[in-house]
Amino acid sequence: MKTLHVDLGDRSYPVFVGENLLSNPDLLRPFIRGSSALVVTNTTVAPLYLQAVTRHLHGLKYAVIELPDGEEYKNLDTLNSIYTRLLEERLDRNTTLIALGGGVVGDITGYAAASYQRGVNFIQIPTTLLAQVDSSVGGKTAVNHPLGKNMIGAFHQPQCVIADIGTLRTLPQRELSAGMAEVIKYGILGDADFFTWLEQHIDALMSLNADSLVEAVERSCQNKAAIVAADERESGQRALLNLGHTFGHAIETQMGYGQWLHGEAVGAGMVMAAELSAACGWIERADLQRISALIARAKLPVAPPENMTADHFIAHMSRDKKVLDGVLRLVLLKSIGHAVVSSDYPQDKLLACLPKPP
Amino acid sequence: MKTLHVDLGDRSYPVFVGENLLSNPDLLRPFIRGSSALVVTNTTVAPLYLQAVTRHLHGLKYAVIELPDGEEYKNLDTLNSIYTRLLEERLDRNTTLIALGGGVVGDITGYAAASYQRGVNFIQIPTTLLAQVDSSVGGKTAVNHPLGKNMIGAFHQPQCVIADIGTLRTLPQRELSAGMAEVIKYGILGDADFFTWLEQHIDALMSLNADSLVEAVERSCQNKAAIVAADERESGQRALLNLGHTFGHAIETQMGYGQWLHGEAVGAGMVMAAELSAACGWIERADLQRISALIARAKLPVAPPENMTADHFIAHMSRDKKVLDGVLRLVLLKSIGHAVVSSDYPQDKLLACLPKPP
Repeated sequence: MKTLHVDLGDRSYPVFVGENLLSNPDLLRPFIRGSSALVVTNTTVAPLYLQAVTRHLHGLKYAVIELPDGEEYKNLDTLNSIYTRLLEERLDRNTTLIALGGGVVGDITGYAAASYQRGVNFIQIPTTLLAQVDSSVGGKTAVNHPLGKNMIGAFHQPQCVIADIGTLRTLPQRELSAGMAEVIKYGILGDADFFTWLEQHIDALMSLNADSLVEAVERSCQNKAAIVAADERESGQRALLNLGHTFGHAIETQMGYGQWLHGEAVGAGMVMAAELSAACGWIERADLQRISALIARAKLPVAPPENMTADHFIAHMSRDKKVLDGVLRLVLLKSIGHAVVSSDYPQDKLLACLPKPP
Repeated sequence: MKTLHVDLGDRSYPVFVGENLLSNPDLLRPFIRGSSALVVTNTTVAPLYLQAVTRHLHGLKYAVIELPDGEEYKNLDTLNSIYTRLLEERLDRNTTLIALGGGVVGDITGYAAASYQRGVNFIQIPTTLLAQVDSSVGGKTAVNHPLGKNMIGAFHQPQCVIADIGTLRTLPQRELSAGMAEVIKYGILGDADFFTWLEQHIDALMSLNADSLVEAVERSCQNKAAIVAADERESGQRALLNLGHTFGHAIETQMGYGQWLHGEAVGAGMVMAAELSAACGWIERADLQRISALIARAKLPVAPPENMTADHFIAHMSRDKKVLDGVLRLVLLKSIGHAVVSSDYPQDKLLACLPKPP
């Protein structure tokens, strides 16, 4: 097992990465401060891993809520069902929420914990690759609004994160690929050595080699933890983590939640960001090719949906959180391993990278 | 005009107290950092004061949302209508929310600001006495859940607070009294001199004498600001501000939102807390009489509703946020001007202070 410390002063916390971690009570129990807990999971994950978690809760007052599975349920109504359950069970402000599931469960549980009685503790047990490398580190919590993803949320750090890579063996391949998009992202945006390592190990990762998975999750979390520690509230460097996400969010919004997975949209979005960077002359065409090839080997799309036009992108991107006073800032590349946040790109180059009318 | 500084490190902010402050653009405009704003008000306040505020917003992109008036609208649905408006107007994370109204508008707007895009700036312009002395200082924001008041919220500090006591001239007398409950609270819990001053000036205050109002609002805010500065996240001393509130919340919940005003319930609740303190032998009966008499002179109830039983109180209080691991902590008195948070009272004394069965 590897243990990583996310360094945020009095909100610091450990991330445990390894195999068979769910069977170890010492990773969970000491991080529950009060005498009660609510496990939040979904109908897909509960039959697989719920019992492994609840058997460590013996002696506590605890309850379980199973949410329906899917991004379309990451909304205020589902959030309210968590509040209702907490109040019905009379769980007080000393309670701990335990998020058992993927990114949707983690985001909504984290936000419930941030807002219930103005903030209670929570623990992340991410069961998808995406959640293990992305949403479980950094304290970003949120739910969606019909007019935009993650528009309602808070920064709220967990007490600990338990990333058991054994849970990835029950993950559909499409979701494994989606998570790999975020793994690849860390290489592209700030860790050229990791990018090269991924080019060498992508096949092992896609066939679920345990050692490779532990290393990939650990290095991804390290990269994210370093960025988050330097910039907890996303005023600067942290925005680099949005590489591919502005294009990606536009794709997800246009297609409707759940049609393209987040990681699939980010995969295509990173290629679009690389294309714009190449069009600006900031990276070589060869680097664009390496990026596109690695994303393709992770079985991810490298282009936006065929029925999506430039107008669709412009409409959605103008609503993006990265719009500051009307100017769209994008994460672009100076090289593999060196991303920058910039609004200093020619507008016509951006338009040239968007899909052409048929 | 008096200016008070709430000292919270990089979240410090000024509170302006005086007459005719709404006509002064310099109190508002410099605190709007971005180039856009959303004014959140309600249908009662808008006809009176909206124009006085919006005329200072010339040159900014701004919108107005008028909420229905009443505590029963301080809920997730109304909150969602604010998010929807923000997104429809494409207001980005650099926008500023301006809360123009009483405590409900302030609480819900503050929470919308805390959670929209994980946090945007906001400004408080409280137009009721309750909001001026209580909810506008301290950064507590929240909405209600059907199972409990203020169960969903965040700590989020405003950029500034503009308390124009001129707005109190349009306040119904019942709401003036309700606000006075919180003013009196500051005297009882930590400022014996202020309590004596209030005994001398309560009639002037009830007849809206301007100098007395400015002094009462300023001293109340000073008292609250000192407590909040010492304990922003309510881990200790800040809990003293809940004097009368545990009993009061039980009354509000039992009667249904809007039947008893918050301040009315707090008035009766403070007398109940003083009665329990006297029953424990912690304060003299004479002090209980002084407290009860001042609250009565502010035209507030000094006893719970006639149809409310001890069982009602117990049921509601067991769900209170001040329950920590099953033990109910109450704010009780050692003297006028000296409150303590304690779970160290005999349970039978508490039961003896609750209404008897008929």
